[in-house]
Amino acid sequence: MMRILIDMDDVTADAVARFLEWYERDFGIRYTRQQLHGTKLSEIVPPEHKQTVLRYPHQKGFFKDLPVIQDSKEVIEALNNIYEVFVVSAAMEFKYSLYDKFEWLDQHFPFIPWKRRVFCGDKTIVKGDVLIDDHDFNLFVFTGRPIVFFSPPNVHYIKNERIDT
Amino acid sequence: MMRILIDMDDVTADAVARFLEWYERDFGIRYTRQQLHGTKLSEIVPPEHKQTVLRYPHQKGFFKDLPVIQDSKEVIEALNNIYEVFVVSAAMEFKYSLYDKFEWLDQHFPFIPWKRRVFCGDKTIVKGDVLIDDHDFNLFVFTGRPIVFFSPPNVHYIKNERIDT
Repeated sequence: MMRILIDMDDVTADAVARFLEWYERDFGIRYTRQQLHGTKLSEIVPPEHKQTVLRYPHQKGFFKDLPVIQDSKEVIEALNNIYEVFVVSAAMEFKYSLYDKFEWLDQHFPFIPWKRRVFCGDKTIVKGDVLIDDHDFNLFVFTGRPIVFFSPPNVHYIKNERIDT
Repeated sequence: MMRILIDMDDVTADAVARFLEWYERDFGIRYTRQQLHGTKLSEIVPPEHKQTVLRYPHQKGFFKDLPVIQDSKEVIEALNNIYEVFVVSAAMEFKYSLYDKFEWLDQHFPFIPWKRRVFCGDKTIVKGDVLIDDHDFNLFVFTGRPIVFFSPPNVHYIKNERIDT
């Protein structure tokens, strides 16, 4: 059966929302998603805030209760009824994310059982037929069919097949 | 470069020790490793204790501070100097294991960085050149060279190349 590998952050879980939320909490300025097109928050904040922003995902709670990307639950559940869907997240960079991501999947994607969840560091280790991801560096190394899922930083990345919603 | 995938429980981390320790704590009886040859603890305890034993790895703390399998650190560090070693654990079955396993690797195998750690459910999702594992069901589905690492339950499993220490 065809295996579809699906990323978490900014494909099913809205990590951009948490970056914007924590930056506003700390510095009182609310950036918009449009301001992140082709870049990322750590690149557009004042240079003295950059390290703070880069540390956010390493802190406890960053990945807890992230909003679900619009329609992702319904679409992935429909795909999962036909294909073998695995969730594959490069979660290992952020040790406090591991438990929060697992719980988040239990809450929002309970139809993806533990056997079809993967937390890795480098996605060259996984194999499958399709990978839906927002990062070019994950898609570039994938040996199956790579599909870019829209996120603000990748808006100008046009080398691959794309899904915008 | 050749990629060697190495399992955690009962290859690098001594989970059998924790099973024996917790069973003794709860029921006052110390089974030996020899008694587990060709079987496992949940199969040899009195039937009324079986569910308790099966629940152990689902409980908080089971995977914390497990003893290191003898010589595994030194041998894997030497392999890692020549090959690309990934640690691949089917940790997803036990949600409380995720953080403890990550910390355990930081403590005992710091030379395996986060990029080369994988927590999955079903090892059919990973690819590599060699897999060293104690479970036949993981080795059976591997497309590279599968090598059995000795653990008491697999002592009679002779279908694969084996490593006993």
